[in-house]
Formats: sequence, C-alpha cells, structure tokens
Amino acid sequence: MWRELAPIGRDPDTHGYRRHAWTPADTDCRAWFRDQAEARGLVHELDRNGNQWAWLGDPAQGDAVVTGSHLDSVPDGGAFDGPLGVVSAFAAVDELRRRGARLTRPLAVTNFGDEEGARFGLACVGSRLASGRLTKAQAYELRDADGVSLPQAMAAAGHDPDTIGPDPERLARVGAYVELHVEQGRALDLSGDPVGIASAIWPHGRWRFDFHGEANHAGTTRLVDRRDPMLGYAETVLAARREAALAGALATFGKVSVEPNGVNAIPSLVRGWLDSRAADQSTLDTVVTAIEEAAREHADRAGVELRVVRESFTPVVEFDHALRDELNRMLGGRVPVLGTGAGHDAGILSGALPTAMLFVRNPTGVSHSPAEFAAEDDCVAGVLALADVLEGLACR
Amino acid sequence: MWRELAPIGRDPDTHGYRRHAWTPADTDCRAWFRDQAEARGLVHELDRNGNQWAWLGDPAQGDAVVTGSHLDSVPDGGAFDGPLGVVSAFAAVDELRRRGARLTRPLAVTNFGDEEGARFGLACVGSRLASGRLTKAQAYELRDADGVSLPQAMAAAGHDPDTIGPDPERLARVGAYVELHVEQGRALDLSGDPVGIASAIWPHGRWRFDFHGEANHAGTTRLVDRRDPMLGYAETVLAARREAALAGALATFGKVSVEPNGVNAIPSLVRGWLDSRAADQSTLDTVVTAIEEAAREHADRAGVELRVVRESFTPVVEFDHALRDELNRMLGGRVPVLGTGAGHDAGILSGALPTAMLFVRNPTGVSHSPAEFAAEDDCVAGVLALADVLEGLACR
Repeated sequence: MWRELAPIGRDPDTHGYRRHAWTPADTDCRAWFRDQAEARGLVHELDRNGNQWAWLGDPAQGDAVVTGSHLDSVPDGGAFDGPLGVVSAFAAVDELRRRGARLTRPLAVTNFGDEEGARFGLACVGSRLASGRLTKAQAYELRDADGVSLPQAMAAAGHDPDTIGPDPERLARVGAYVELHVEQGRALDLSGDPVGIASAIWPHGRWRFDFHGEANHAGTTRLVDRRDPMLGYAETVLAARREAALAGALATFGKVSVEPNGVNAIPSLVRGWLDSRAADQSTLDTVVTAIEEAAREHADRAGVELRVVRESFTPVVEFDHALRDELNRMLGGRVPVLGTGAGHDAGILSGALPTAMLFVRNPTGVSHSPAEFAAEDDCVAGVLALADVLEGLACR
Repeated sequence: MWRELAPIGRDPDTHGYRRHAWTPADTDCRAWFRDQAEARGLVHELDRNGNQWAWLGDPAQGDAVVTGSHLDSVPDGGAFDGPLGVVSAFAAVDELRRRGARLTRPLAVTNFGDEEGARFGLACVGSRLASGRLTKAQAYELRDADGVSLPQAMAAAGHDPDTIGPDPERLARVGAYVELHVEQGRALDLSGDPVGIASAIWPHGRWRFDFHGEANHAGTTRLVDRRDPMLGYAETVLAARREAALAGALATFGKVSVEPNGVNAIPSLVRGWLDSRAADQSTLDTVVTAIEEAAREHADRAGVELRVVRESFTPVVEFDHALRDELNRMLGGRVPVLGTGAGHDAGILSGALPTAMLFVRNPTGVSHSPAEFAAEDDCVAGVLALADVLEGLACR
C-alpha cells in the first residue's frame, strides 16, 4: 500500500508532503483510498462532507466499528501523520480475514477530510462538519491564502459543496471509532513500548499578542526615545519558555508578523502567536496568565501597548473511559495510557460517539516534518494491536 | 508649494506617504518639481539616471552650487523626509531673489531619484548611478517585490533605462552640494537649536542572523526535545539592545522572517536582520561582535545552528571639512555640528564632490512615519539658513 501512496504530493526538494484539502494531491490520495477499498471488496462511500468510508458489512445494521484517520498533511509534513492510521486500518482488515474472524458488527475504514487544516486554517473540517461542530455557514466563510473559499475549492475538486453539514444519521450508525496514529512525542520511546492508548487530549489554545510601538528610523532614533515592540515580544518568547518549563506544560511562539518589517525601521507592530497546552485546565490557565503578566510588564517598561486576544480554545477531551478500558483489556492490560497535546478527528467525534486512539512509537518524537518516522516493526505491532481491538469489538 | 505636494501618494487610511520610485505617485511628484522650476523661470533638466535639475544660470559655466534632496518616501513615510529639502531649496531661491542677490556661480535645485530604496531594496539609486557607485549591470538586477525589474519600472514610467550609468561630466560641473533635511533624531531639540550642520554619517551595516532549528509539532514535542530557533532569536534581540546601550551605539531588529510560520509549528528557521550604527568604526565592530557572540552562545545552548551574513556595509562618511567650516562661518558660528546615523545622497556624492548638510529640528525625533514633524518657524529658519549658505557660496 505504501508504495502507491508514498509519492503523492511529495515535494521533490524538501521531501515533505503537501497534501492539502481539495488539491490535486488530495484527489490522488482519495483515489488511492477508493482503490484500496475496492481491491478488498469493501463498499466505498463518499459522505456529504467529503469523508470517505469503506464498508465491510451493512452500515444500516448500526453499532458499527469504525477505524481510520486522515490522508491530508501539513505543509512539508511527514509520511506517517494520518496515513499510518488509514494504511493500518486496511492492513488490520486483511489481518482479520487471515485470522478468519467472524464479524457480528459492520466494520468501516475511514479517511476524514481536511484534518490538518493546512489550507483553510481550521483543523478537522470533515469531522467538525459531520458532528455539527462547524456549520455550513461558517464553513462557507473559510478561505485559503489565495482567497479561494472552501465551497469553491470543493467544487473545483468535483465535490458538491451544497450538501455539506451535520450528518447525525451517519454518526448514529457508529458504535465505536478507533483511530491509530503515529505518536507525536517520545513517551513510548522513553517507556520502551511499541503501542500506547490515548487517555485524553490536553486542553489547548492560541493567543495573539499584539505589541503596538512607534515606527521610527532605526539609524537615527536614540535608544531612550524608542518605543520598540520587538523588545517586548522577545521578552515574552523567553517568558513563555520559562513558564512552560516551570509548570511541565508546552508554550510556543511559532508565528510572527511585523509591520512595516523593514531592516532600517523600528517596528510599529509585532504580532506573535502563542500556542499553549497542558495536561489540565488549571495548569494551562496558570501558564498563560504568567506569560501575559510578563508580557504586560515588559510592554509597559518599553512604552509599548499590548493587546492579547484568545483566538481559539479547546477544552480537555477525555476519551470514552469504558472503551479505553476495553481496549486495554484486549491488548493484555500492559499497554501504557498517555495524554497528547495534539488535536484529532477522534477528539472532535468524542462528543458524538465513543472514540479511542492507539499510538505507535515515534523514536525521535519528530512530527509535522519530513523527518517524522516510525520503525517497520512498530508499524506491524500497531496493525496487530488494531486488529486485536477490532476483532474484540466487532466479533463479540 | 506644500499645498500641491501634500496630497500626492498619501494613503487615506494611515496618512503615510507611499511615493516609491517610478510609481504614479513618483511621476506626480516629478511633475510638481517641473512646475515649480518653470514657475520660477528655472531651466528643467532630467538627467540620464532620472534625477531632476532646475537651473538658474548656465550649467556649462561649471563650479555650480547645487541644493536639493529627494521626493520619494519609505512605506508610510512622513511629509518632511526628502520633500523639506526640495521645498526649502525652491524657497531659498525665492529668498535670494527677494534679497537681490547677484550670483557669480550657476545654481541648481535637484530631486535625486529613489533615495529611500523602498521599492528595489537599495537606497540612493539616483546618486549611486550618477557617481558610479552602482553600475548599470547591477541596477538591471534590481527587482521589486512583484518581480518587476528597475529598467522595466523606469520604462513603464516613460524613462529610457538604456541611458543609465555614471555621469562624471555632469557631476564635474558641481562645485558644492548642500542638502537640507529634517533631523531624524532629537539632538537639535535637546540643544534648543532650530538648525544644525552635519559632521559625518555614522558607519552602518546590515547583518542577517539565520537561526536554523528543527520543525516540529508545538503541541506534542517536549521542551527538552526541541531545537527551537525562536529562543535564540529572542535572546539576540535583547542582547543587541543591551550591547548598543553599553556602547552608546544603535542596534535594531526590525525585520523577521519565520519558516514555516505556523501557530502550531516550532519553526525550522528564524531569520532576523540587525541594523547597527555607531559614531566610529571600532565602536560598531565591538557592538556587532558582542551581539554575534551572544547569539552564538544562545544558539549553541538550544541546539540551533547560527549563520551570520553581512548583507551591506557603509563606512563612515565625513562631509567635506572646508565646506562645513565655511557653512558654519556663514551661519554665524553658533550652529551645532552633529553626526547622523542615516544615509543620504549627500553622503553618496561626497566621494565625487564637496558636500554638506543642514538639519532642521525635529521636536519628537520621529521619522519614517506619518508622525514625522517640523514646526513652521523651524522650517522658515531652515530656508533662511539655506539662503545664507547659497548666497555665501554663489555670490562670492
């Protein structure tokens, strides 16, 4: 399977993937999915929101066991984030057949569309639409960097944008959703386990820090006369790291925009985006409050105005405890249970149905990068664990 | 004069000027210059490099006294930087006529093209071309942000780009060039003088600091596993301010570029541009070396690779001492003499002929910003001082 999928949407220079929603690379990934479904005699179905389903058994029976992930990527993404879950799902179906498993519940493999949100800036669009977490009107407002709207992009790729929206009947047929994903950290590497089970997705948010100073000539303005917003920004970057380290949380400034962004101009505005996550809400609150206080103190000292805007926030997502415990039992009870800072379709869908996740060891922890990696033995262990889980759920 | 000039190229929202070289706003400024010349019976001439001259007397006589500045602006520039020198030059001609001054040397008012370099990234293109500091081949390589080359832009504005290049015969006719400019700092405000004389342009340069780290997921990568280049950049911004303050120099990070610049991505690359200037070469060397050492130390500690590239460098420019002393005598010997961190056409031309500068008080020191300001009384004092100097030079 990897052989046909690997070259799609790969940049020849960076070797990173650019499989963004509703682009030709995305269309090629979808064709690959359909081919894999049909080669196995599974019934392929594209839902109203552009998510793909490959059915074994009759979906109308209900209480289906569903597994899968996504095929789209971040800019210059790696080979595993998303595709490992879809490839492992098909491989697990093969394994169940090899074992001669007799299914009592319908089973499906899925590819949720636009999970990464790389093109339209919002993650998990396919699962958000299906579960009603994103309305049709809101989705119609989404635009990519070239000004192309989501419905325009869908139509260009041959999908009718008029049909998008909540799909409760479809989700009501699903009794359990299990997503396998490459780990995006090193917890399994440190514990020495090939496979883990997700406990929860950490609460996380994005805050925009706008430092408004005064534009001036960098070659003639005395230091004491400056109101340079870059200084407050720099202090805040360092404060974020310090506070996150103190609290055992994460805090990152990865995006900056500067005005006028000229070499010989003291900026009038430096805008930095903070991404912060922690295992629980109160830790996250403590960290973000401390960063904001440090920013405000440094801004005041430099005569710079600070405005902080919370652009998005996702509370903690606890995966279904009963399903999680069931998975753990099926896997012999020796599998580590770990939290994650990353969002997933399984997190979005957890509000609508019981969901769970399996993680496969990532020896470097690197993800969202061409250097993302998982060893073949660990991928095989992931497929066998997923097959055990699907067999346990669908054959009882 | 200000009434006709003021609206040209002004952004209705920011009230800043966008008079970039060879744009329609620039063409309008040039038409204004020609109108002013013709209204005074001065002979208008456009030279090979797009600089404008307005002659009183026969340029072929040689040993001309020339005054002027530029009309183009930085993005969102102020009303005075450049235009004050051109307006004051025409007003000084009016003042000389009012006084009935009898000129023994030809006199010209100039508008040097593309002084700010806002469009093509290189400052003082008009004076650099004329003085041979920029070759035709180098000028042909210049491109704006849309990929339009300098010769294409010239041709689009109706100027033949084939004629550009060194113009030694023209410069040989000039015996002295005096440029009046709004001060871009607060030295005159602090000393309580409306007008000053330039001593020298500080040595200055631009250095690009490339911090190469490792792209990774901001939501899942443990702090200890990160190689985040934003941290080294932030430390370096603060080190630059510290070292400049210690040495009485200037150091600014006003431009940044981040890859991939995503909110949830630890950057792979943070590129920051340092602009640094000091009164003398050894101070500048000390400051930049100290900033680079601090950057290297912080980069090493964060596992980040640092590359520092000097992108441009201009050694100290001492204005002609004899001319400067003459100006000071003509102005009664009570005028402060001050250095400046900013480059000017008068600095570029100082290699080819005697040049001098007059500064007019800037009460806030703000420049390269819509808030740039000079009081009317001080502007009048500037015109009278310029008239005194022109009379002293051209009537002896």
